[in-house]
Amino acid sequence: MTNSKSFMDAALEEARDAAARGEVPVGAVLVLDGAVIARAGNRTRADNDITAHAEIAVIREASATLGQERLAGADLYVTLEPCTMCAAAISFARIRRLYYGAEDPKGGAVDNGVRFFRQPTCHHAPDVYSGLGETEAADLLTGFFRSKRES
Amino acid sequence: MTNSKSFMDAALEEARDAAARGEVPVGAVLVLDGAVIARAGNRTRADNDITAHAEIAVIREASATLGQERLAGADLYVTLEPCTMCAAAISFARIRRLYYGAEDPKGGAVDNGVRFFRQPTCHHAPDVYSGLGETEAADLLTGFFRSKRES
Repeated sequence: MTNSKSFMDAALEEARDAAARGEVPVGAVLVLDGAVIARAGNRTRADNDITAHAEIAVIREASATLGQERLAGADLYVTLEPCTMCAAAISFARIRRLYYGAEDPKGGAVDNGVRFFRQPTCHHAPDVYSGLGETEAADLLTGFFRSKRES
Repeated sequence: MTNSKSFMDAALEEARDAAARGEVPVGAVLVLDGAVIARAGNRTRADNDITAHAEIAVIREASATLGQERLAGADLYVTLEPCTMCAAAISFARIRRLYYGAEDPKGGAVDNGVRFFRQPTCHHAPDVYSGLGETEAADLLTGFFRSKRES
C-alpha cells in the first residue's frame, strides 16, 4: 500500500506538470517488478496528437524501453479513470493491475461508459483498483477547468 | 464512388504491405479535401507498440503533417472495422467519414462490440460506410491467419 501510494504520488506529480504546460492534468506511471519503467503526463497539445494521453504515452515508452509489445505483469497508475481508447490499449498491452484515482462519468470506460473490461470483445482485463489519490486527482482537474473558464 | 474505391484500394495496398512484413494485414488512408494526407499499415510488431494500428498511425501522421490535433473534415479509409481503441481515437480526432472494409465481430467496435459511436460517452461520431473492398480485406486477413497456423 505504501508503494502504491508513492506510485500514485508520482502520477499526480506528472498530472501537475501537465497542468503547468497547459495540458489537461492527467498523469500516469508504469511499474514492473517494483520499479518505475515509464512516467508521463498527458501531452496531446504539445505533440499535436490526440492519442497522446498519459496512459498511451507510458505504454509506448515502456514498450520502447523493454523492446516488447506487451507488458504482462506490469501495473499502471493513472490519476483519472481511463477513456475508451486507453482502456482498450491497457487491455492490448496485457497490463496486470490498473490503479486509477478519480472516476470520469463523462469519458471513462472502466466503471463508466462502455465498461470495456467487462465486454465480450475485451480479451484481457486487468485487476482494477480505484480511488487511490482520488481527491487530489479530481481537485487538479476541477482547478484546471475552472481556470480555463475564467481565463 | 470512384474516388472512394481508389482510396480503399490504397488502404488495401497498405494492408498487403503489412502482411509482407509479417504484420496483421490492415491498412488505412486518411484523406482531406480529396488528397491523401497519410497512409499506413498496421506496424505493431515493427514498432513494438500495441497502439500502432493502421488507424492510429495515419491519425498521428496526418496530425504531425498538418500541425493540428484534430482532423475535422477528414475521411478515413480502413480495410477492417476499427477496434475499441481506434474507434475512440477516430472520435477524438473528429474524423468526418469512416469507410471500412470487412466487419470484425471479435474485435470491432463500430457495428460490433461496444458500438462506440452510439454511446453517450462518445462526443463525436463520424458517418460510417462499411463493405467497401470487404472481400479483398477479409481474404487478406483469412490468408494471413491461415499461413500463420500452417507455419
